[in-house]
Amino acid sequence: MSTKAAPDATRRSETARRAILTAAIDLVGEVGYPKLSIEGIAHAAGVGKQTIYRWWPSKGALLFDAFLAFAGEGEAAALPDTGDLAADLKVVLRATVDELENPRYDRAMRAMHVEIVNDHLLAAEYLSRLDGPMRELKKTRLRSAQRAGQLAEDVDLEVAVDMLFGPVLNRWLHRTGPLTHEYVDQVVDMALSGLAPRP
Amino acid sequence: MSTKAAPDATRRSETARRAILTAAIDLVGEVGYPKLSIEGIAHAAGVGKQTIYRWWPSKGALLFDAFLAFAGEGEAAALPDTGDLAADLKVVLRATVDELENPRYDRAMRAMHVEIVNDHLLAAEYLSRLDGPMRELKKTRLRSAQRAGQLAEDVDLEVAVDMLFGPVLNRWLHRTGPLTHEYVDQVVDMALSGLAPRP
Repeated sequence: MSTKAAPDATRRSETARRAILTAAIDLVGEVGYPKLSIEGIAHAAGVGKQTIYRWWPSKGALLFDAFLAFAGEGEAAALPDTGDLAADLKVVLRATVDELENPRYDRAMRAMHVEIVNDHLLAAEYLSRLDGPMRELKKTRLRSAQRAGQLAEDVDLEVAVDMLFGPVLNRWLHRTGPLTHEYVDQVVDMALSGLAPRP
Repeated sequence: MSTKAAPDATRRSETARRAILTAAIDLVGEVGYPKLSIEGIAHAAGVGKQTIYRWWPSKGALLFDAFLAFAGEGEAAALPDTGDLAADLKVVLRATVDELENPRYDRAMRAMHVEIVNDHLLAAEYLSRLDGPMRELKKTRLRSAQRAGQLAEDVDLEVAVDMLFGPVLNRWLHRTGPLTHEYVDQVVDMALSGLAPRP
């Protein structure tokens, strides 16, 4: 009998975990980061506060996990690698654009970004828990492209990530232009081939 | 006598205008955009409210003028054009980095950007009064580079501006890395030559 209990408990835990992550995304979009509380999330998710504290040390940590789960649907441990760097980057960036079209995600992400602009500690947590891990996945894909001869050997990967993924973030955050698939395709093509004339 | 009165009045107007712009920058950094008021700016600048309303229709309009004046010191009607695109872009971006090191400017810009993320109307005003005019100056410089054969003919200038100027804005806003002259030099060189290997 005890051999059956373990999977049930695991399933119940996973259900609770998903409910908490979903509640965190929805609540931060509704009330903003300063008013987001572990109590509020526990209430919305139908779990006890202690359940949340057992898994996350702070509301920031919980929220960044929620974004990771939302963005990756829990399965994106790597960027696609078909061998065609431009095509793979376009797939990823088009998916990002589609995500940002989702009002729930848009609201939650804006609530978080507003806070990061002024809160040094949250910015550091963003860096270590969300931006950092995502950046590693991107750099892994770019390293593979370097080995395949599709990316110049001497390219600084930190700067490359900023050039490829920054424009979409900016355009979304500051509403400086339409966020379309065409736009991200242009960013990828221009970043790869460069702005200077090719000989 | 009246021939002397006009220049005096002009000088007094210019002094008042500068006091108002400076007060707007300082106040928004102190109290944030929602609490910024024309009354508060008038008080800090030592002028009457009517003086401000005569020149600006809203606190947003005044603030964007203040940023333009602060960034350009009132004289930057164009980007430098020495004939060397990479060098000129580096000069401009290094100056941007230096500006953002100024705590007064940093605080004021953060206060504004936080608000733009959530306020559609302010975002539109930002676009038409600050981002738009600056973008035109940048595109004019890039067009000149196209004529000089330093920028590919088929490059979309909107995307080019995003790629060249976006990374610094992002890195500053989200504190994802150190904002240095070396960083902006790398951005310019990589954007011009591209990430793909040159044949």
